[in-house]
This record gives sequence, structure tokens and C-alpha cells, in this order.
Amino acid sequence: MRFGLLGAGRIGRIHGANVAAHPGASLTAVADADAAAAGELAQRCGARVASIDDIVADRSVDAVLICTPTDMHADLIERAAKAGKAVFCEKPVDLDSDRIRRCLDVVAKAGAPLMIGFNRRFDPNFAEVKKRIDAGAVGAVELVTVLSRDPAPPPPSYVARSGGLFRDMMIHDLDMARFLLGEEPVEVHAVGASLVDPAIGLAGDVDTAAVLLKTRSGRIAQISNSRRATYGYDQRIEVHGSKGMARAQNVPVTTVEVATAAGVLADPVQNFFLERYAAAYRRELDAFIEAVAAGKPPSPSGADGLAAQILADAATQAHRTGEPVRLG
Amino acid sequence: MRFGLLGAGRIGRIHGANVAAHPGASLTAVADADAAAAGELAQRCGARVASIDDIVADRSVDAVLICTPTDMHADLIERAAKAGKAVFCEKPVDLDSDRIRRCLDVVAKAGAPLMIGFNRRFDPNFAEVKKRIDAGAVGAVELVTVLSRDPAPPPPSYVARSGGLFRDMMIHDLDMARFLLGEEPVEVHAVGASLVDPAIGLAGDVDTAAVLLKTRSGRIAQISNSRRATYGYDQRIEVHGSKGMARAQNVPVTTVEVATAAGVLADPVQNFFLERYAAAYRRELDAFIEAVAAGKPPSPSGADGLAAQILADAATQAHRTGEPVRLG
Amino acid sequence: MRFGLLGAGRIGRIHGANVAAHPGASLTAVADADAAAAGELAQRCGARVASIDDIVADRSVDAVLICTPTDMHADLIERAAKAGKAVFCEKPVDLDSDRIRRCLDVVAKAGAPLMIGFNRRFDPNFAEVKKRIDAGAVGAVELVTVLSRDPAPPPPSYVARSGGLFRDMMIHDLDMARFLLGEEPVEVHAVGASLVDPAIGLAGDVDTAAVLLKTRSGRIAQISNSRRATYGYDQRIEVHGSKGMARAQNVPVTTVEVATAAGVLADPVQNFFLERYAAAYRRELDAFIEAVAAGKPPSPSGADGLAAQILADAATQAHRTGEPVRLG
Amino acid sequence: MRFGLLGAGRIGRIHGANVAAHPGASLTAVADADAAAAGELAQRCGARVASIDDIVADRSVDAVLICTPTDMHADLIERAAKAGKAVFCEKPVDLDSDRIRRCLDVVAKAGAPLMIGFNRRFDPNFAEVKKRIDAGAVGAVELVTVLSRDPAPPPPSYVARSGGLFRDMMIHDLDMARFLLGEEPVEVHAVGASLVDPAIGLAGDVDTAAVLLKTRSGRIAQISNSRRATYGYDQRIEVHGSKGMARAQNVPVTTVEVATAAGVLADPVQNFFLERYAAAYRRELDAFIEAVAAGKPPSPSGADGLAAQILADAATQAHRTGEPVRLG
Repeated sequence: MRFGLLGAGRIGRIHGANVAAHPGASLTAVADADAAAAGELAQRCGARVASIDDIVADRSVDAVLICTPTDMHADLIERAAKAGKAVFCEKPVDLDSDRIRRCLDVVAKAGAPLMIGFNRRFDPNFAEVKKRIDAGAVGAVELVTVLSRDPAPPPPSYVARSGGLFRDMMIHDLDMARFLLGEEPVEVHAVGASLVDPAIGLAGDVDTAAVLLKTRSGRIAQISNSRRATYGYDQRIEVHGSKGMARAQNVPVTTVEVATAAGVLADPVQNFFLERYAAAYRRELDAFIEAVAAGKPPSPSGADGLAAQILADAATQAHRTGEPVRLG
Repeated sequence: MRFGLLGAGRIGRIHGANVAAHPGASLTAVADADAAAAGELAQRCGARVASIDDIVADRSVDAVLICTPTDMHADLIERAAKAGKAVFCEKPVDLDSDRIRRCLDVVAKAGAPLMIGFNRRFDPNFAEVKKRIDAGAVGAVELVTVLSRDPAPPPPSYVARSGGLFRDMMIHDLDMARFLLGEEPVEVHAVGASLVDPAIGLAGDVDTAAVLLKTRSGRIAQISNSRRATYGYDQRIEVHGSKGMARAQNVPVTTVEVATAAGVLADPVQNFFLERYAAAYRRELDAFIEAVAAGKPPSPSGADGLAAQILADAATQAHRTGEPVRLG
Repeated sequence: MRFGLLGAGRIGRIHGANVAAHPGASLTAVADADAAAAGELAQRCGARVASIDDIVADRSVDAVLICTPTDMHADLIERAAKAGKAVFCEKPVDLDSDRIRRCLDVVAKAGAPLMIGFNRRFDPNFAEVKKRIDAGAVGAVELVTVLSRDPAPPPPSYVARSGGLFRDMMIHDLDMARFLLGEEPVEVHAVGASLVDPAIGLAGDVDTAAVLLKTRSGRIAQISNSRRATYGYDQRIEVHGSKGMARAQNVPVTTVEVATAAGVLADPVQNFFLERYAAAYRRELDAFIEAVAAGKPPSPSGADGLAAQILADAATQAHRTGEPVRLG
Repeated sequence: MRFGLLGAGRIGRIHGANVAAHPGASLTAVADADAAAAGELAQRCGARVASIDDIVADRSVDAVLICTPTDMHADLIERAAKAGKAVFCEKPVDLDSDRIRRCLDVVAKAGAPLMIGFNRRFDPNFAEVKKRIDAGAVGAVELVTVLSRDPAPPPPSYVARSGGLFRDMMIHDLDMARFLLGEEPVEVHAVGASLVDPAIGLAGDVDTAAVLLKTRSGRIAQISNSRRATYGYDQRIEVHGSKGMARAQNVPVTTVEVATAAGVLADPVQNFFLERYAAAYRRELDAFIEAVAAGKPPSPSGADGLAAQILADAATQAHRTGEPVRLG
């Protein structure tokens, strides 16, 4: 499968390198407004530099990876889909859920395969929890807890154009909650505050937040987020069901423990998302290639992207108004 | 310090035995409507059987332990306080917070020491978390998570007169949240469902619930409860602050692990509250005796009992209405 | 069952209190060369002070607990056995294995029940490992590792009359190795050194040692000992078999973990043998009372005491000569 | 740095791929008696197929990686060293320590850098333990425990020509013991048995073994090996010193835990050495390239290879004779 890559930034470089190293894929062309960035990545991956137009028009390109800024996602998805490409797009499809709906209509009409980059579903630990749930290890799911804490807050300039914590950061956890609950949330409560960096509060956002979700049948999900974790990139899930509990713990830097009079000191957890989710990005690409090759719809789908965005919007509104938002 | 014990049921027997074994205390008299229960406990602890009236009137009794059914608590607290006794009362003071207020007024006028039995504050693990917080180990508290799951649901008959899960079970966790947050919650969100036993739902209660609290300065607490945990009595807390995180994990039955092709199997957690909290009950009594002997107000106080009840009422209302309750 | 206690020192006080608290036993009399020690313990346990002669002659005494200095053990066992008492004796029976053999002959002729205080067999964690082995959880045992480290070295004066580390400290681990191996060791290798306290080396003993055992069928045991562990009283076992591995980990002071930039700090392990083995002492007494009441031979038996002593002698010799000792 | 690779078997393929992916190195040529194996690897890594003679004679080749059968190692090291190449050779240099000595003489005369592939020193977990020891975290080292268990025994045909478990498998652990002890062992005790596969015993080897080492100053190391571990590839080290203990635990397949009435089930440990030590192989190559580029002698050196072989010989002899072997 020959890929064109749109966007050679941090996440584009990950996907580009993974495509180049994949036995069933090759990277054909790289486009980026920053010619140097495109050139460097293209050279490293044996690809050529091209414009977005060229890549979309190139009949030898089977699939495009969209890793551009968010505000270009929906347009590029539509163009690539109309050109008959299989499309992999980083989350979110758009910050406006109506725009996502129109985009998904275009994709549906084009019949193009579309996968949204909720990479955490492919983390070996989280994927194993899902596998155990599906195998019945915990019985019927009743209560899901998702915890996600970044090592350090982003600069306020980023915050201002991010759509806010619920859309920018928690959207991953909202997708994870949907993934694990097995039912759609219909009630969204949210609280948040700026406790980490006052500049984030001044920019109109929160850096510490929690959401409470309820599905129609009464299943519950708790999510908590913070823009700070001194001990690494804290990423955990826990699922309670009628027969028991499954959880994925953090991944420590090493398995070393040192015992002294002070106690038993284990390592902090892996600190950076590129390290913590390196396997997830590879497995995500595997899943996309496998689905497209088999003619099956990739998952998570555009509809998953829309559903997570709707929840992020609801959480944003619930936080702003102090009132729960009811969906569906 | 000479104690009179009012109520020789399950919890009364624990406190009675702890008093009898305490080097600085003795059990003088036991009262219970069930004469056989009172007699058996009195004999085992070297005490006499007496009526409540006798115990309250007995000048040689320094302190009373109130372990009767909940609906007698407030009256007995008032009578004992007026009689000049130090008073230890099992939670809750009353299911009606106005009644609690009137009771606390009486106690205040009598100048009697009053301690409410939120035993979990004295669990060595939870107490150590609090100690670390107070010592600054995690910096300023930002987010608290309390998880509490009973091994098995109570009979529906119990549920009907319990005041509901939020007042009967979660009140412990609401007190723990207050204890750890270091600030009063001013916003209470609650969701709940009957997922464990349909009879609980038919009795008008829930068996699975979660609450989201926010304090004035923006600190957040998440609580989750279930009436079922197949792997033992799940009791955990986790506190995130500006400098790090402190948590108390469960206590396993033994430290044994067995590794086979299936994986590494550790023991379930201790299954019963009497076992899990045996040390907590002893340390709670120590604290009461020490405070009274030193002429200091015992903690948790009657005001703590009231505050927890107000939160439990708010959670009950928030769950019923689907709207958050604002306090303070 | 009415007990007489010979020796009111540290270990005698533990056993005495456990007898007094046992529902099926009472402490009748306490003997000790130190009258004050005997008196204090007797008063606390509702017993009288008596001489050893009185206790041995007292027909109302069913069983004796021997907690005297080691050099009196064998004589007292013989006297009590001849007087028809059930006998519980702290380890070791004697530092001289020939003396043990003669003592066991006397006990056998008297037909008296005799149990030796290898308390660790009754530790809930270690006992559970044994139970799992016996249930087949790890298949045929192949390799056993026993680690035992004291928090701090004893005074050199103690070392001088202790019989040496192998007989004084490692004897517990040699018994544990026999308990877990399910076969008698026939080959004993030992190395040791004085690395903790030079005064121990000057007193002719070691404070750090390891032993390698092999049974006739080729099963292997590794034991390591040190007189120092900064992080608490380190007591672990691990058993490998044809189907897997079972181990007992240490017991931490609390289950608290604190995560900061330095890592995740758990508590040190319980520091003192009285705390670590409190349950073991109670369960050991239960087993003695139960066996005697049922007319069954108690376990560990005098023969177990002899076998451990023979291994300790062999380890001592192996260390001194640098050559392995072959047994059986 | 341009590499020639001698040997395109399992381990050669790992090193070849790591060289090809290394930013500071390239793979120039691959030699193997099996032309297809050489060709496939060469193509994948952008190298050409060549004979050993060609590679040794090729002046553009800076370094050779020797991954051939063991009996060719010493000859190839000598030829490459004489040709002025930097040499990386898989362990062992030779099964005969005299042959190793002669080979190291040749290397010394040629002045060629030589590194021996004791990859475990570069495992992130084990390397971190060493780093902590060197930083003084545990004080003066006193006792080292190394445990290594293969998931499944090799075929008896392999065993017959392997040199025996002590030279084939335990040599890694003997090197690790040297690495961690910081002193040379002078006394070697060994026991072993065939408990896993009778065919291994019939082939004159053992599949279960333990070694006890002592250094001149009295430091102790315990090593245990088995050719079977049902729960994965068990690889652990533990180091006790005057100030505390450092250990590296196993790496589980995932961090998932499932709690049910049976207990809390964690994953088995990573099962295969290529997975468990993937990072170690990469870091080992980094260290070789870095040392050679800086003109520093690589470590572990040829002398380390010799020292480990001498210990493996001593362990073999100690096991055969039943008597300890004294060195130095």
C-alpha cells in the first residue's frame, strides 16, 4: 500500500517512519508547508516531496495520512476521499461537530475508508483490557474509570487555539470511555479548574478536570485529567463488571526497585507520549492497512470521531454552565 | 476511663472488646434490648448488664459508646452529653440533618466531648496518606479519588430502611473526601443505577453510583461505589497534588503470588470490613480516649458528622433530580 | 487446655499472652528465674507464679511452653515429657545434635506430644505457599529460594554464645527449606563472611552467609542470610516447580505509595519479628492445641528440630572447612 | 562506521538490522555459509553479500560483527583484528579458555578494539541497577542474586554440543555476577540436576542448576538456572549492600491485571529473549560504536569474555566433582 503523507510535524514524522518500516507499505510522497520538514522526512523514508494537490491527484497513492493542523482535516479528508484514497486522519476531524457531519457525508458518498487516529485504542495494555472485556473476563461492564495526566502543561499560546481541555486532551479519554463502556453516554457532568498554571485560566481554559458519564442502561464512567504529573505520563484505565475488574497500570521507565530505610522506590512512569504510545502508533497503522487491504471499514471510524467530539462539546458546555448535558 | 456501651450488636461487640483490651480503659456496663446479647458481651468483657437509663445515670461511667440503631443516636447523644459523659457515636448522627443540628446544639451547651465513628480515617493506610499530605509530600491537593466497593449487596430489607446508598454507604467516602480535600465541597453531581441486584432498584435505591464534587477553589473529588466486588472488599484512595500523588492500595489476603502459563496470580483483597478495618477500630478508640483524657475536642467531630450527612443528602438529591446541588 | 509457661522473656511473653487470649486454653502458672518478670506476666494473664518444679509436678497443668534459654531446653523437655505433659519448646532443642537425639528418645519413651517452635511454618504467607505446593499449583518442586535478613545485627556478646549464624539464625531457613523441598538435603555447601559488623567477625562468627542444598533426587535450595536490612525485616520464599512458581513477598508497613519526580515510593517492610510473625505465633499455638486435643502428633516435631539442627551443624562445618558436607 | 557481518543466523539478523537502523553506522556486507540467508539479510539492510575473506580484506569495512557458530569465533576475531578492524563478537570467545587466552594475545598485539556480546549488561533494567550501585544507592555490595530461567529447554541435539548448561546458559549470569559484585569470585560451588527433560540428563548435561560464588573479601553471589519457566522468560537480579537493596523485576507482557474471585491475575512475563532483550541489543551496539569512535576500549572486553569462561569452566568442574573450585 502506497501512502502519501500530509503534514510532516511531530505526529507526521511518527506515522511516516512507521509506514516506511512497515513490510506491507511504502511512503511515496510527503507534503508540508515547511519544505525543509517535508524534505528531511521524505529523504529519511525514501519518499519524494510533493504538494498536497499532487498527492491527492497521484493515482499511484493508495492512502493518505492526514497530520496537518486540525483546521485542515475536514477539507483534506473530503478531497482525499473524493479522489478514491483510503484516509487515515489524526483526531479530531474538526472542532465543529456539524462540520464533521458534513465531512462524513462526503466520505460516505465517496465510499472511502476512513479511520480516525485514536491511538490509545491500540496501546497493547489498553487493547488487552478491551480484549478481556470482550472475552467476558469481567462480565457485564458497570463502571469505567479513565485517568490521564500530562507530564507538563502546554504553553498558553497553544491552549488558546486548542478548543479547550475537553476537546483537546479529554477527547482521547472520552473515546476510551466509549470504547470500554460498550454503550453511548447520554448524560455528561463536568467540573474543571485552573490549578496548574494560572495563565491557562486566564486564557479561558482549565488544566484540571473531571467528567462523569452515564449511559442509558446506567453504566457509569469517570474521567479525570490534569495538565501536570510530576512522576511521568500517567495513563490508566480500570473497568468494573459483574464478574470482576480489569485494569491497565502505568508503564515504568525500568523495572528497578531500590529499597532503603526510606522505603522501596520504583521508577517513575514513562514520561512522553511518543515513548508511551510508540507501539500504539505502529499497531494503529497495522490495523488501518489490514482493514483497507481486506476491504473492511477501519475502526475507529469517522462516526467514532464524531461521537467523541459530541461528548467533548457536551463536557465543555457542562463545565461552562455547571449543568449536566443530556444527549441522544 | 470507664465506658458504658449502648448496643451490643456487631459493631458494639467490636468496640466493647477493644475497650476491654485497652490498657487505659475498662468496660463497666453494657445495655441492649436483647438481654442475651448484652449478657454475653458483658461477661466476655468483665462488665455488668445495665439499662440505658442506669448507664446514663451512673456517675462512675466516664464515657458512652453509642452503637444502637441509627434512629436512637441523636437522643442518646443528647442524654449522655447532658449527663456529662464523653460520647462516642457510630455514624450517622441521624438521617435528618436538622435533627443533627439540634443535637449538636445540645452537645455544645453541655460542653460534652463528641466523636463520630468515621473509622476509615484511622485505617493505617488511609491515615498514612493523610499524614503524607499534611507533611507536604504531594503539595497542594488538586484531585481526590475514593473507591469503595462492598463484597456483596445487603438484603433488600436492609436497603429499604438504610436511607439509600448515598447516606448508608457513600457517607464514609464523602467523609474521606472531605478529610483528604482539605476544603468543603460546594458542588455535588451524582449518578447511580441498580446494576447489581434488581431488588435494590425495586426498593427505590441504587447499588452502583458515582459522585463528583468540587470545592470553592476548584479542587475535585471523584467517588465511586458498588455493592459488589468479587475479589474482596475494595477500598482505595488516591490524591493528586501539585508535587505528586499519594495513594493507598488494597490489602491482599496474603502476599503470595503464583506464576504459571496463565500469568501471575496474587491473592484477592481482604474480604470483610471487620478484618480490613480491625486496626482502624482500635486506633479510633485510642484517639477518642487520648483526646478526652487530654481535654481536647475529639475528631472527627459532630460537625464532621453533620457535614458528611449534608453531602450525602445533596448526593441523594442530585441523583434523584439529575441536577447538581450547590452548597455553602 | 491448661498451660504452664517456663520462661517469661520476650518470646515467653508472646506465647503467654496468646495462651491467655485463646478460647480453648488458659495460662495456669509462670516460672522464671526473674521473679518480677514472672509476676508481671502472670498478673497480666490471670496466672500464678510458680517454680519450674511446681509446674512440672502440677497435675492440673496439661501442657508446658518452654521459653527458657536454649541450654535448659532438652532437660526441661525430658522432665515435662516424663511428667505426662504435652510439650511445646522453642527452637532449638539443643545446640548439640547428640543431646537432641537422647532427648527425643526420652520423649518417645514417655509418649509425650512434642512440638518445636519453627513459627515461620505458620506465617499466613509462607503457609499459603506450602498449601499451594501441596495442592499441586507449581507441580513437582525443583528449586527453593529462602531469603532472611534481620533489620540489625545482635550485640557481639549475643553472637558469642549463639552457636553461630547457621545455628542461631539460618536454622529457621533450613527448616523452611526442608518444609518446602519435600525431601531431605544430602549435600550442604556454605559460604559466609563478616561484612556487617567487624565485631561479629572478631567473635568468630559471620553476619552474611549463603547455603546451597541438594536433595537425593536433585532438588536444589538456596538460602541467604544477613544480619542487616535497612528497609525492614526481609523475609521471602520462592519455590519453582515443573508447572510454575509460588512465592511470598514481604509485608509492607502500609499499602501507601507516593509518586513524585523521584519515582514511586512504597513503604519499607515490617521491621520487627514480633510484628511480622504475630499471626504466626498465634497460629502455631492453635496448631499445637488442636493436635494435642485430637491426640495427633504435633508438627513440626522433635525430629524436625533434629533435622534442622543437623543441617545447621553441616552448614557450620561446610563454612569452616570450605568443603561441602554430605549427609544421609 | 561501516560494518561487515559474519553470520546471518538468528542473532546475526538482530545485529544486522540494528546496524542498518543506526544513524551512525551502515551495513556494508554480509557473509554466511547459507547464501540464501546472507542474501535475504543483505537485501533487507542495503548491504551486499560477500565471503568472509572479502569482508576481512575490504578496507572500507571498519568493523566486523561475528555471529557465526562458536567454534569459528576465535579464528575470526584474530583475522579481523589483524586486518585492523574493530571487532564485536558474540559470546563466548571459545569454549576452551586457553584458546581464548591465545586469541586475546593476538588481539592485543594487533591493538584492535574487541567487545564481547554480553548483551544483558545493556538491558535497561539491569544497566539501571548497575548505575544505581555505582552511584552508591545500596552502599558496599555484599550479596548478589541472579536468576535466569529459559521458557523451554533446547533440543537434546543442541545440548550435546553446547558445552553444557554452565558454559552455554549460565555464562551470562556469571558475567552478570562479576558485573554486579565488583570483585572477582575466588570460590565456586555448583549443584545441578536434570529435572526438566530426562533427555538432557542422558546427553550428560543438567537443566536445573545453582552456583554459589565468593569473592576474596567475602562478597557472595547466588545464581540459579532452569531450562523451563512456564510463565515466560524469567530474568531477575537482586543486589544487597550496606545501605540497601536494588533489584530488577521481570517485564510483563502488558500491565493488565484482572481481579476476580480467584485473585488478581497479572500477565506472564515476556517470553522470548529477542523481545526481552531487544533494547539491550540496540544499546550494546550503541556502546560499541561509541567506544570505537572515541578510541576507547569497548566493554565488556575480551578479558571479560575470558573471566566468564573461566567461571563457567569452574562451575562445570565443581558440579562434576562435587567439590568447590578455587580460583586466583
